[in-house]
Amino acid sequence: MPILSRKAAEMPASPIRKLVPFSEQAKKDGKNVYHLNIGQPDIETPKVVLDKIHNLDLKVVEYSHSAGFQSYREGLAKYYKGFNIDLNPDNQIMVTTGGSEALIFAFQTCFNDGDELIVPEPFYANYNAFGVTANVKVVPVTSKIEDDFSLPPISDFEKLITSKTKGILICNPGNPTGYLYSKEELEKLRDLVKKHDLFLFSDEVYREFCYDGATPHSALNLEGIDDNVIVIDSVSKRYSMCGARVGALISKNADFMNAALKFGQARLSPPTFGQIAGEAALATPQSYFDGVIEEYVERRNIVVDSLNKIEGVICPKPKGAFYTIAKLPIDNADKFCQWLLEDFEFEGETVMLAPATGFYATKGLGQQEVRVAYVLKKESLIKAVKCLEEALKVYPGRV
Amino acid sequence: MPILSRKAAEMPASPIRKLVPFSEQAKKDGKNVYHLNIGQPDIETPKVVLDKIHNLDLKVVEYSHSAGFQSYREGLAKYYKGFNIDLNPDNQIMVTTGGSEALIFAFQTCFNDGDELIVPEPFYANYNAFGVTANVKVVPVTSKIEDDFSLPPISDFEKLITSKTKGILICNPGNPTGYLYSKEELEKLRDLVKKHDLFLFSDEVYREFCYDGATPHSALNLEGIDDNVIVIDSVSKRYSMCGARVGALISKNADFMNAALKFGQARLSPPTFGQIAGEAALATPQSYFDGVIEEYVERRNIVVDSLNKIEGVICPKPKGAFYTIAKLPIDNADKFCQWLLEDFEFEGETVMLAPATGFYATKGLGQQEVRVAYVLKKESLIKAVKCLEEALKVYPGRV
Repeated sequence: MPILSRKAAEMPASPIRKLVPFSEQAKKDGKNVYHLNIGQPDIETPKVVLDKIHNLDLKVVEYSHSAGFQSYREGLAKYYKGFNIDLNPDNQIMVTTGGSEALIFAFQTCFNDGDELIVPEPFYANYNAFGVTANVKVVPVTSKIEDDFSLPPISDFEKLITSKTKGILICNPGNPTGYLYSKEELEKLRDLVKKHDLFLFSDEVYREFCYDGATPHSALNLEGIDDNVIVIDSVSKRYSMCGARVGALISKNADFMNAALKFGQARLSPPTFGQIAGEAALATPQSYFDGVIEEYVERRNIVVDSLNKIEGVICPKPKGAFYTIAKLPIDNADKFCQWLLEDFEFEGETVMLAPATGFYATKGLGQQEVRVAYVLKKESLIKAVKCLEEALKVYPGRV
Repeated sequence: MPILSRKAAEMPASPIRKLVPFSEQAKKDGKNVYHLNIGQPDIETPKVVLDKIHNLDLKVVEYSHSAGFQSYREGLAKYYKGFNIDLNPDNQIMVTTGGSEALIFAFQTCFNDGDELIVPEPFYANYNAFGVTANVKVVPVTSKIEDDFSLPPISDFEKLITSKTKGILICNPGNPTGYLYSKEELEKLRDLVKKHDLFLFSDEVYREFCYDGATPHSALNLEGIDDNVIVIDSVSKRYSMCGARVGALISKNADFMNAALKFGQARLSPPTFGQIAGEAALATPQSYFDGVIEEYVERRNIVVDSLNKIEGVICPKPKGAFYTIAKLPIDNADKFCQWLLEDFEFEGETVMLAPATGFYATKGLGQQEVRVAYVLKKESLIKAVKCLEEALKVYPGRV
């Protein structure tokens, strides 16, 4: 049998997926499992999107332009204009197959084998996978729960910069932390990437999910680093249509966009149906977002407030996305999350959480932390947190 | 400005795309351009597909399983059963974002940097791009128009095999040649990959397009090399829905499929709408294919027969896909194809062709050859070939 590649061996399996068999068994055993482990919202896709799909007048489902339909790119330019970002739809926006493809194209276009990318941890676990795919070394800089996962001091970044360092990647608002970087934090990053001539990759797929009156600041709003900034975007969370697989790669760096488009041409085009859905979604009324934000704020408050009432639990109240990281009085998050599914139940129910270890690149970190995605209805969230509270009372590995 | 990657520089631009500005200018100048350069068929997508999309009953456009919807994989297994191929939908079929993603995942899973892949040329130009993406060296073995582009002698392959050779990639039926490999040819390849323990990547996206009673033979039908065979598939051409971006990666090699799935998990899932369309397409009635085949046979006969009547033109009559390569009495195909758009017209019309140089990896080959995609209605094809005939009479670089 021919042997597989080094990458095939190094490619990380998702830390959450390891738990899936246990969750399936729990369900077979008749337990009700509350899924706080996933980023698939239960929110409905806007009606304008589904109406458009129902009324599609297509005879042939053709390829689009490799950078996406022109009309959709024009619509996206108008959308960004609403955030005071001026973009040329002809050559500064490329529609991609989800934010994932945007990141892969960005990495392939920017990194040579062994180049280094600094990423504040905890971070979205698939960044590791994209790093393996593109032969990039992901170098973590640690943010801390005591600081609400705010930007680590710039001196910590400086210590990690080598001749191989080619970029910094942030997720803002952040998955898994929910932390929203302030204008001041972003300006510090701007100065840093300017000083060392680095790329700043900014994953802004949760842009709309900002709470308590907080404003999202895009890396595209930073002045003086147009050639350094590369933004990753996606319709997945914004319009609760993860399955559309439509995202965008955005930059004012013309050489970068030209080169990235060659990778796009090789795969022909992003999905036609998804793009039609994405273009329709641009007409989503503000009332939809108002309702969604209100719902998430209530959910967040329920989850965070009740978590913080549990003895030994620490949980920041983030201003963005729909995740938070909680520190629990436990020995090992992987063991605990598996135990919840395998060995615990409270009134026939249990809860599935994502161990935070999978979001840290530094070995040993996150062992007492879990990510909580507040993507369920309020009544379910209340019961889920109650489950967790009861579980912590009896977990044998409590510390 | 931070510098881009080596891959960004090496990534080939499509040879056809270089002609696009000339084609756009020709249209602006009022010329009617017959597009024989593209693989986007004008055939309608089956009605069962569009009906399904119109009647979709979705509230949330969710992710699917990373390997694709289970029901779709089960449907695909049934489809392959019709070709005497037994597949387990749980772990031998992975739905991908088009055939392109299937190829990229296959390359990433099998190849280390600098490994070599032997491909009969002329070949689909994007294989080069996927090679650059995965750091694979594409090594061409030349097939000849005089032999109708049949499989080169195995001794030619043997000469190219080194310690770095990890696989052979075929496209069957072939783009750009239309050549359909016989059972005997495939069995020769089987013996070769078995002898040297190589992967055999078989791109079979044109499987349904076989003419004159010819039968397609899948690499999956080859006995004794289950661990070596990796098949690339796609709904794009089969159901004329290139924009769905749905394909499949298929293998009975369990280690390969497990590893490939990790790449699939990193990008979350293939497109939901496209998969729903793909699953609906499995119910396409045989009458649809009968009509399509009949149409393509007529088109092929018109194109090939009339091309061969032109003095100095040689054109094989292939048994598959919807392309053929023609040898023309010209000095340089790139120059000629540009000249057709820029400097030529016949009764206000001209024709756009794909220079075959882009399909050869060996420098200097294909200079007198063009790829003709017979994807237009018969009346248009007749006029297009007439244009070409007139052009050859006056082309200054005629030889």
